[in-house]
Amino acid sequence: MLRKILIANRGEIAVRIIRACAEMDIRSVAIYSEADRYSLHVKKADEAYSLGSDPLAGYLNVHRIVNLALATGCDAIHPGYGFLSENPELARACARRGITFIGPSAAVIQRMGDKTEARLAMQRAGVPVTPGSPGNLGSLDEALAMADEIGYPIMLKATSGGGGRGIRRCNDATELRQNYERVISEATKAFGRAEIFIERCIVNPRHIEVQVLADQHGHCIHLYERDCSIQRRNQKLIEIAPSPQLDEAERQYVGGLAVLAARAVGYTNAGTVEFLQDANGRFYFMEMNTRIQVEHTITESITGVDLVEEQIRIAAGLPLRFRQDQIQRRGFAIQFRINAEDPKNNFLPSFGRISHYYAPGGPGVRTDGCIYTGYRVPPHYDSMLAKVVVWALNWDDVVARGRRALRDMGVYGIKTTIPFYLAILNHPDFRRGHFDTGFLEAHPELLAYSSKRRKEHIAAAIAAAIAAHAGL
Amino acid sequence: MLRKILIANRGEIAVRIIRACAEMDIRSVAIYSEADRYSLHVKKADEAYSLGSDPLAGYLNVHRIVNLALATGCDAIHPGYGFLSENPELARACARRGITFIGPSAAVIQRMGDKTEARLAMQRAGVPVTPGSPGNLGSLDEALAMADEIGYPIMLKATSGGGGRGIRRCNDATELRQNYERVISEATKAFGRAEIFIERCIVNPRHIEVQVLADQHGHCIHLYERDCSIQRRNQKLIEIAPSPQLDEAERQYVGGLAVLAARAVGYTNAGTVEFLQDANGRFYFMEMNTRIQVEHTITESITGVDLVEEQIRIAAGLPLRFRQDQIQRRGFAIQFRINAEDPKNNFLPSFGRISHYYAPGGPGVRTDGCIYTGYRVPPHYDSMLAKVVVWALNWDDVVARGRRALRDMGVYGIKTTIPFYLAILNHPDFRRGHFDTGFLEAHPELLAYSSKRRKEHIAAAIAAAIAAHAGL
Repeated sequence: MLRKILIANRGEIAVRIIRACAEMDIRSVAIYSEADRYSLHVKKADEAYSLGSDPLAGYLNVHRIVNLALATGCDAIHPGYGFLSENPELARACARRGITFIGPSAAVIQRMGDKTEARLAMQRAGVPVTPGSPGNLGSLDEALAMADEIGYPIMLKATSGGGGRGIRRCNDATELRQNYERVISEATKAFGRAEIFIERCIVNPRHIEVQVLADQHGHCIHLYERDCSIQRRNQKLIEIAPSPQLDEAERQYVGGLAVLAARAVGYTNAGTVEFLQDANGRFYFMEMNTRIQVEHTITESITGVDLVEEQIRIAAGLPLRFRQDQIQRRGFAIQFRINAEDPKNNFLPSFGRISHYYAPGGPGVRTDGCIYTGYRVPPHYDSMLAKVVVWALNWDDVVARGRRALRDMGVYGIKTTIPFYLAILNHPDFRRGHFDTGFLEAHPELLAYSSKRRKEHIAAAIAAAIAAHAGL
Repeated sequence: MLRKILIANRGEIAVRIIRACAEMDIRSVAIYSEADRYSLHVKKADEAYSLGSDPLAGYLNVHRIVNLALATGCDAIHPGYGFLSENPELARACARRGITFIGPSAAVIQRMGDKTEARLAMQRAGVPVTPGSPGNLGSLDEALAMADEIGYPIMLKATSGGGGRGIRRCNDATELRQNYERVISEATKAFGRAEIFIERCIVNPRHIEVQVLADQHGHCIHLYERDCSIQRRNQKLIEIAPSPQLDEAERQYVGGLAVLAARAVGYTNAGTVEFLQDANGRFYFMEMNTRIQVEHTITESITGVDLVEEQIRIAAGLPLRFRQDQIQRRGFAIQFRINAEDPKNNFLPSFGRISHYYAPGGPGVRTDGCIYTGYRVPPHYDSMLAKVVVWALNWDDVVARGRRALRDMGVYGIKTTIPFYLAILNHPDFRRGHFDTGFLEAHPELLAYSSKRRKEHIAAAIAAAIAAHAGL
């Protein structure tokens, strides 16, 4: 088993990995920029090392991180999500320097990171993909011809993209002409590669993704699906497991597809196969994420499996502890990404000091966070501060529990997405479990929530109560 | 369904009940003494009413509580545990005034509160009880004769006792002579009734209790057992579900006994049937608790059933939602009672201001608490501040998770039982799942833990790390 792991990340996912290490008796090493000096991941790790004043450079410096791991006696590196997690350079540098990288091989990361190559691999394996260009586009004329063939609307996508970035929808030839150079330019800037390709646009699909685990001994299983259709501009906000919109046959089918996909590329460790499901119920492979995902928590809630622990065990060369028939699903789970943003102000990031923080609690509530009373949210990073995960035996109960847990949580001093999520939970379509990726755009009225704080309501209620009581 | 519930309690169990109300769209009404003005249950309820300056009188005043419930438009009262929860007067007053009491009938509370009557009812129903006096003792001579018949050691017990109070062990006739008048006097002082009885002392038994739910339509089920053997002076500290010490046959048997016991007395609502298991594996009925218990959380973790919600549904007259074969058990759960006490100083209560509080989080961790950064723990109440409940698929993992969660939790400014529990979790017998009610007494060395704070360890590690890093 591994003895000491460097966590090449920050914030809540670093805390999550430190917790897994603590349960496995593995020492944890945190890294931090000076802006993160008071972050919980620094407090909770067994050791923590400053990477200097630049808020980002240190977290992205492959050479320095690998050197630090070696210098501190680590035998493994966990990349978390974001930062270097899907950069094959880190996996490659680890392999070269004799450190275990907790993730798949550099070759698999690279292959699945190239969206056209991934599409081809899936087609060869018999996994359905959206109709589109067989490879990268050579010219605008080729793009126009291809779009005519597959039919508008189409999507222009960066071959090296991911996470919902480097994507534009074109409804006709005029829009395709307008966007062609723009996406190439965006792709070059964001991912350092100019290649783009074309796909048919599945209009308002459901986003259904499947968690897989594969060990180094040829075993591969899935842990059921997550429904991540509640998105804003391709960014997931609320995730659900299992999807309340799939029937049992669809569930088994898409799980099997994910295992087929993972096997086809010789996948190892934890990964996610993302599908779009169209209005007719057909699934299309979208991409594979070769890392732990933000929303892995809800799969843990319904299966009881600790995915980060399994990642570490697999990386250490151990065989999977579960056969497919031993993965038992129970109830429903919902994750809410608590972002420091003001939904009413176009989701503008809201940074600063958290004057008071109360974590939600009670039955069926899990919180993964990196905040505390007095914490100053630094402006340099992703705005996600915490994840609230609720679980219950059935769909109606988990929706009620989500509403209760969000009201239970108190984050004062900054704006968050909590009141927006409460509005979503109250929408009749959401409560019935009916939504697709167009849900938020179709319901701009959800932003018209009252921004009065519950605390004030309570203060008013108490005052009224005391007044009433005086008359008793 | 009920519309508005008055919670005749305080602290964590009041918060727990408010959460259930919130999930069920039922309005919650809190009551508080002035000492509890800043308690979380006051903040979280929809309405809150002061009961004046006396820290205890208000919580114990049946007449005033029932009047307040009526005056505020409540249709039900939930008593929580402790205070008036097992006082038949509250249940009776509710019935008289047309308010739903969330618990069993006054008659059942009274009957099970009388330990000799409860013993007789169980004997008649065929539930095994410890050998002992058929009724209350009339004289010391009768006690001595009875003790000779059943064999020493024996227990002298207050007929109206409960919760581990009003009990003395006597190893021989001399000790029985010494303790006879003493227990009568204690019983009179603590419970207002002088009756006592005698039982054989089961030496170092396991404490195994079974959760039951019974509706008003004749349905009664059990939700498996809890092992509460980790006790200090008859006070539970750590509780486990299911017991790692029972095999499946014992589990089914004791579950069935509990249902038999509940049916025998016409029980309704949530209740707990407590058994002692001797070294030969035999079970003996000890008592029935006619209320929600502190440790109901671990049963919720393994079954997924929200017991407080079920209490409310049953009280509202709804039939049970689960048949026995629909109660599915998964994994193991452990609850730690986080008490404001100094274990190294004879568990002296430790009150004052909590300067910093960090709730534990991550997978498989639930916290029920009534504390926050800046909260002043009042000196008037039970020292239990919070409950940390961990869950995992198997026993080894739940022990590791418990250790991690307790280290994850930060309560600064007062002493707590956390470091003592960490010592228990590290004991090889506990880790193997082998313990009885004599465990803590047999291992006084568990109190010899280092009281250095983890925070200081971390600060030292960070300092060392920075120094090391400067040389890189």
